[in-house]
Amino acid sequence: MKTDSDHLFPVDPTQRSIARELYAVAAPLPLISPHGHVDPALLADDAPFSDPARLIVVPDHYVTRMLLSQGIPPSKLGVATLPGADPDIEVETDGREIWRRFAANWHLFRGTPSRMWLERVFSDVFDVPPLRAGGTAGWGNADEVYDAISERLSKPDFRPRALFERFNIELLATTEYPLDKLESHARLKADGWGDRVVTTFRPDDLVDFEWAGWPARVAALGALTGENTTTYDGFLSALRSRREAFIAAGATSSDHGHPTALTLDLSRDEAAVLFEKGLNGTADAVDAEAFRAHMLVAFAEMSVEDGLVMQLHPGATRNHNRWLHTTHGRDVGGDIPTATDYVRGLMPLLDRFGNDPRFRLVLYTLDETVFTRELAPLAGGYPAVYLGAPWWFLDSPEGLRRFRETVTETAGFYNTSGFVDDTRAFCSIPVRHDVARRIDAAFLARLVAEDRLPLDEAAQTIADLAYHLPKNVFRLEG
Amino acid sequence: MKTDSDHLFPVDPTQRSIARELYAVAAPLPLISPHGHVDPALLADDAPFSDPARLIVVPDHYVTRMLLSQGIPPSKLGVATLPGADPDIEVETDGREIWRRFAANWHLFRGTPSRMWLERVFSDVFDVPPLRAGGTAGWGNADEVYDAISERLSKPDFRPRALFERFNIELLATTEYPLDKLESHARLKADGWGDRVVTTFRPDDLVDFEWAGWPARVAALGALTGENTTTYDGFLSALRSRREAFIAAGATSSDHGHPTALTLDLSRDEAAVLFEKGLNGTADAVDAEAFRAHMLVAFAEMSVEDGLVMQLHPGATRNHNRWLHTTHGRDVGGDIPTATDYVRGLMPLLDRFGNDPRFRLVLYTLDETVFTRELAPLAGGYPAVYLGAPWWFLDSPEGLRRFRETVTETAGFYNTSGFVDDTRAFCSIPVRHDVARRIDAAFLARLVAEDRLPLDEAAQTIADLAYHLPKNVFRLEG
Amino acid sequence: MKTDSDHLFPVDPTQRSIARELYAVAAPLPLISPHGHVDPALLADDAPFSDPARLIVVPDHYVTRMLLSQGIPPSKLGVATLPGADPDIEVETDGREIWRRFAANWHLFRGTPSRMWLERVFSDVFDVPPLRAGGTAGWGNADEVYDAISERLSKPDFRPRALFERFNIELLATTEYPLDKLESHARLKADGWGDRVVTTFRPDDLVDFEWAGWPARVAALGALTGENTTTYDGFLSALRSRREAFIAAGATSSDHGHPTALTLDLSRDEAAVLFEKGLNGTADAVDAEAFRAHMLVAFAEMSVEDGLVMQLHPGATRNHNRWLHTTHGRDVGGDIPTATDYVRGLMPLLDRFGNDPRFRLVLYTLDETVFTRELAPLAGGYPAVYLGAPWWFLDSPEGLRRFRETVTETAGFYNTSGFVDDTRAFCSIPVRHDVARRIDAAFLARLVAEDRLPLDEAAQTIADLAYHLPKNVFRLEG
Repeated sequence: MKTDSDHLFPVDPTQRSIARELYAVAAPLPLISPHGHVDPALLADDAPFSDPARLIVVPDHYVTRMLLSQGIPPSKLGVATLPGADPDIEVETDGREIWRRFAANWHLFRGTPSRMWLERVFSDVFDVPPLRAGGTAGWGNADEVYDAISERLSKPDFRPRALFERFNIELLATTEYPLDKLESHARLKADGWGDRVVTTFRPDDLVDFEWAGWPARVAALGALTGENTTTYDGFLSALRSRREAFIAAGATSSDHGHPTALTLDLSRDEAAVLFEKGLNGTADAVDAEAFRAHMLVAFAEMSVEDGLVMQLHPGATRNHNRWLHTTHGRDVGGDIPTATDYVRGLMPLLDRFGNDPRFRLVLYTLDETVFTRELAPLAGGYPAVYLGAPWWFLDSPEGLRRFRETVTETAGFYNTSGFVDDTRAFCSIPVRHDVARRIDAAFLARLVAEDRLPLDEAAQTIADLAYHLPKNVFRLEG
Repeated sequence: MKTDSDHLFPVDPTQRSIARELYAVAAPLPLISPHGHVDPALLADDAPFSDPARLIVVPDHYVTRMLLSQGIPPSKLGVATLPGADPDIEVETDGREIWRRFAANWHLFRGTPSRMWLERVFSDVFDVPPLRAGGTAGWGNADEVYDAISERLSKPDFRPRALFERFNIELLATTEYPLDKLESHARLKADGWGDRVVTTFRPDDLVDFEWAGWPARVAALGALTGENTTTYDGFLSALRSRREAFIAAGATSSDHGHPTALTLDLSRDEAAVLFEKGLNGTADAVDAEAFRAHMLVAFAEMSVEDGLVMQLHPGATRNHNRWLHTTHGRDVGGDIPTATDYVRGLMPLLDRFGNDPRFRLVLYTLDETVFTRELAPLAGGYPAVYLGAPWWFLDSPEGLRRFRETVTETAGFYNTSGFVDDTRAFCSIPVRHDVARRIDAAFLARLVAEDRLPLDEAAQTIADLAYHLPKNVFRLEG
Repeated sequence: MKTDSDHLFPVDPTQRSIARELYAVAAPLPLISPHGHVDPALLADDAPFSDPARLIVVPDHYVTRMLLSQGIPPSKLGVATLPGADPDIEVETDGREIWRRFAANWHLFRGTPSRMWLERVFSDVFDVPPLRAGGTAGWGNADEVYDAISERLSKPDFRPRALFERFNIELLATTEYPLDKLESHARLKADGWGDRVVTTFRPDDLVDFEWAGWPARVAALGALTGENTTTYDGFLSALRSRREAFIAAGATSSDHGHPTALTLDLSRDEAAVLFEKGLNGTADAVDAEAFRAHMLVAFAEMSVEDGLVMQLHPGATRNHNRWLHTTHGRDVGGDIPTATDYVRGLMPLLDRFGNDPRFRLVLYTLDETVFTRELAPLAGGYPAVYLGAPWWFLDSPEGLRRFRETVTETAGFYNTSGFVDDTRAFCSIPVRHDVARRIDAAFLARLVAEDRLPLDEAAQTIADLAYHLPKNVFRLEG
């Protein structure tokens, strides 16, 4: 990264100079990425990336949703339609056309993190000129940038593993569902990359009756593990078995994306009844929520046994844009956050395990209002609870700044778990971590400049936030 | 406006200097006021304003509610009581007395936008000395200021149309209920002012069973349009007819002030049943909310047909101060905001029209917590949705600043619809727009100073925010 | 206090210089502490403090909860267990051991107000070196600081009354339950300290059926007052009688800590039925909430009669950490805030008394989201309502700053009631007030530097915030 720039540092010269000094401590530290969505096949295959549009535009729902919001449908940007969707929709296949469309609307991204991430991917990763819209066609120098990136992509230095080394990544966690056979991780292990790329256990599709195809997946879980998943006890055994397989593939944490933060500590028999209703198709929405809520406590219990750190990401209304979902499927930018009650929701889980030294729970939110009101008090009051980094819509300079401003006074720095990039966009990993380090440097610089923390302690803190805390909280110290 | 002042600019010299430069781009641009509450008769009549108290104190509920909050009842400030209200209340009629009472309590407004607006109305519009409380009577130089403003008000240069020209207003939208005959707008049109002062269609009093007198207004709607409004279908036809009349009087948008953001897409028959219950007095609170919710979808459907941009202002608990309501009526400062759920509430409406290129919805809020959590994600994900300016209690320097800080990263600048002054106070229009331009300049200056946006793009952005965006979003480009 | 430091002042030199100037106005003013939890026996006895651990660590739940959150149980910090709690838990009794444990974890407090308060208690009150963790044992200079404070504590200058004088406290209000016989206050009065240390009437334990032992306390109330508290009317008379006794012990306010802000204006007969259900053990959770809600209106009615200012602190989920509650009891750091609806909740109370000039209600919150949305509009619209200082988790530099930034534009400065320290930690009183004065100076300095308020008015405002407003709002001007 271009570590000599003042990008994102506060304007005041005193504060900026302290921020620089603190950033210089964090900048050389290796990247720990304990939570993300990079496809492990990318690194297992280590094949060259395809064209710039398919690398940068098509798979990035931050980009395609912004363009949709101004009337450019995802199909014009190369996003595939679902089988059976409106047959009149033609999906753009020409990478250069997609790129031009994107470039002509570059102004839409002013002030957004996407703009910042992309600019720095262009400059820092690919060393190409900045995109400048305009001109008669509107797309400015789109072709020049496209060609320059394409040229880089053909070189060995721009293959995934070479970039991984260049990015100074020490550890990258990917995320897989329990039915995943972890074949890419096996290949990575065989190549000596097993300690560098690990998996994360994400069982959402196995605990959610409302996710189409649930019974079939439960059956497949039985087939994969040899357990009898027609019973609740067999289902639990099969999940335990998959957790073991994930741990063997390097997992140190599980990840749980639920609509709400509700937890329930049901008896075995109550849970078994729900499980049967789920299987025989008689469960209603209340049953589905109850089963998800109960399974969070069941997974916490497994965590106490096997040591996986539990991550909880509640509060997204999935597929709010129904047309988008029907046409293009999940995870294409149609989700919207919603208010989440952690205080009442987590009570059953925390009653059981909140004070248990073997248990560790990292909480994320899309609802900033809970930072001072709920999450910082919980993290600052329960041994098991840590505060995850600002997530998704909040993973941005202002979001990161508000996070520190609102949680530190109640939870301190040491009940937070460090930055996670949470990204599918492999090339954006370094800039995302760099932004977090810069914002932390700016925040700490204010504390120093306002005589609230001595410089030496601030320096130690930023090193902890950037490197030592995530290694420790996610139990990566092996 | 005194465009050479550093009013509201950031203190840091680097950032201030950039803010000045950006503000200089926006300052000369004409004012677009697509949403407000100026009485159109003011401009149709073009009569001199009455005394300073009746211009500035009596009709401004920001002012009278603050004085009430410190124990000065509205009647002492010239606010009329309702027929039948407590007969012991005497309403002050002496403009000078009202003014002195206001001036003696000038300190209450420190740090408020009312103070700022009034100060700049005094200096920029009337060129009179600043109000300074104190002295033995407490009201300081109240008489001097009162006399100076009175003197100005008698001159032709201070008539409404002269001020309109001086204020550099290109377009002013007023707001009328459907039963309004739009007579002032007809007179304005006859005087060649039809393109400069337009109306807005606000049908709240015709869709709210709980608003006293609803059946009578529905009957009056029938009489006005010649439609049979004893049936739901006739009621819809009558509303369509009034929309046409409003469009003829220049309207390009409708405005909807609802208690919540709930929408419902009922069948024609379900809606007709509710309508009949409303007419025959058997509707309960749930029916009333359902009918309002349904009518939002019905109006969206009409918008798709006739092109009116739809504005939605939910979240005010009207007439919370019941004594104030009973004594002085509506819109005198007794409303209090409340939490609003846009994500679930708008789903039925957005399912129908959120991705429809013919539809446009501008959302406002009194609940800042929804900016990052709900509104920016919705505006950044649906083609139809735009974010309206911070409204009412949030229409202030800090409110405007937080708006940009919280929405830009997710929605960008181009899913916001530009500033609206929303005011009844004609003389405050220029200062309100000026404040918005200054705060935008300050925000953009920070992006520039922190190396997040080049200066030339920031300059283009501020011109868009100040002028081009509202013209475009409100379909004012003719 | 070390009033020459720039602690907490903004970094920008212009703003800092104005902040210094404003702070210099506030710094010499005596402290008014109208709400807090210092034990009055401390000042009645005027005995030397015990060791540093028992003064600073053991009773401070801000400190013990942070250490618990990182796995150090309260028992290791000298916090007593309840009779009947887990007998395997050994409570540390060695003050020096407790202190070392605390010192070795000093880094956990970086960026928290606890760190700031403690540092300035060390430097300003005790004039001892700052704590610096580290070294082979981890606890750095813990012993040196411990010994230095111990040495000071043995001197007459460090007795409570001497510190009270040194701290420049003009008035300190403590908080007592109605069954308290106010014996310490009687002794203080006998010593001529009756005007300096007053009580506050806090009846929560007498209106909450869900608080274990309620019927016994009601019976004790009867015994104490000679009223027949087996009837609702007698219960009310007894409460009135205790209010008189509290007023005789200097009380000018009551304090009410409720789970929610719900109020209900029940008829005498409805309330009497609930009261009886409470006494005979048949009340459920809904009855308990209804009775608490009704009693707020009943107390407001008493306030109109006897003039006590009513304080309401809703929104804490008490004893959320159930293990902590079971093991160590109440008020040891196990409470968590939760969302609170003031707008609907307070309507019945405000309908009755919101516009009554004899009534005064000071509202606090743990939920910052209500500042712009609910509390500032209520305080800026009802004569009776004032906004209390940011409370508990929000009583911190960032919390105080956000408070001014979010409430001032709607409520102004004069509908806020001034800082309250709310503390049990006697030695931290001056630093807490000093922090509030510094943050107000910084906020006002920004208004001055941004040309929003003239310096002379800012200076008058900070004096009002620091001294005159709390005296006036809490009716302490006698």
